[in-house]
Amino acid sequence: MPREVRERQMLDAAVEVFARRGYRAASMDEIAELAGASKPLVYLYLNSKEELFSACIRREAESLIQEIQAGVEPGDSAERRLWCGLRAFFAHTAEHPDGWAVLSCQARIHGEPFALVVAELRQRIVDLVTRLIAECAQPDGGRKPLSAREVSGLAHALVGAAESLAGWANHRTGAVPSARETAATLMNMAWVGLENLTGGRRWPPAAAV
Amino acid sequence: MPREVRERQMLDAAVEVFARRGYRAASMDEIAELAGASKPLVYLYLNSKEELFSACIRREAESLIQEIQAGVEPGDSAERRLWCGLRAFFAHTAEHPDGWAVLSCQARIHGEPFALVVAELRQRIVDLVTRLIAECAQPDGGRKPLSAREVSGLAHALVGAAESLAGWANHRTGAVPSARETAATLMNMAWVGLENLTGGRRWPPAAAV
Repeated sequence: MPREVRERQMLDAAVEVFARRGYRAASMDEIAELAGASKPLVYLYLNSKEELFSACIRREAESLIQEIQAGVEPGDSAERRLWCGLRAFFAHTAEHPDGWAVLSCQARIHGEPFALVVAELRQRIVDLVTRLIAECAQPDGGRKPLSAREVSGLAHALVGAAESLAGWANHRTGAVPSARETAATLMNMAWVGLENLTGGRRWPPAAAV
Repeated sequence: MPREVRERQMLDAAVEVFARRGYRAASMDEIAELAGASKPLVYLYLNSKEELFSACIRREAESLIQEIQAGVEPGDSAERRLWCGLRAFFAHTAEHPDGWAVLSCQARIHGEPFALVVAELRQRIVDLVTRLIAECAQPDGGRKPLSAREVSGLAHALVGAAESLAGWANHRTGAVPSARETAATLMNMAWVGLENLTGGRRWPPAAAV
């Protein structure tokens, strides 16, 4: 069997075991067994539990980012790009619940070397969203531009909302919401506000609060 | 020195060390030293590193939830309660960055016993927000009620957005946004959408997408 096929099987098994047991409790024995490989071969190919975990994170994050990018047409309106990007995101997290569990929970452990890998990959998603919001917020036709700080805050809020919703959708008991439904929930909450902001209309209407 | 004062000093030190080093790398020696106590006394009072960490989580989470509840007037409009609740939340996370780091990063490690403690406490915040949204979404005067599932999704989205923004505000280099400014960023993004939804107005306007 070619090495790349073997490695893929090992990574598949590792993602499943890491998601189920957590990084610390996961054993290389269980991963090797699930992959149908010997433990020495897993070590030969992927060096150590830590490197195996980092390889899982990189693969799952790349796959997620590629799906989002593939789902978005660069020429579309910001509204449609956000809608399509969110649908791609929620479709991927629903189809790869173990990968998403590894990225969103395991890998955030502060003080571990792989936390940096995940932080960097999360930043790429935040950057995508930041550019999208900044682009709508260009000053034109009397629109008041948003400050870079506000755009950055909005991007982090939107990404955090999407992360939280992905976990919610994957852990619901009973009927699982479709990716389209989950994306619509977030568009419903966030789009009008974003559109208002980029048009210089802010909350609150003066007298409200 | 009374035991409760001693314990408070130990917890203060532990939160600081756990936030800086991560749960695994944190040492009881460092915690005892920072607390100005002997290691045997820390063990006598708080039993084990795991129990000490759980005690930190409970204390920080209770303190956060109490501040949110104290910031909100039960008789106010939903809009104002959300605004005040968010300001209280961001004020607390800004004033207790180590406590927030422990709650939001360290404590999410799947597979560890304390992950359940944090999940339960996060659920209490989600429940607060769920009730707030559900209450606005009561059918009255021709308003179309939101489904329980949609309300639940919206609450998770809002809580995720707030969590992400708290981390963003605490890790910004340069001028730190005030709690008021961070809360306004989230109100700007989310309030109009929530208000529209509770009035039965959904995204997208029919032709948009």
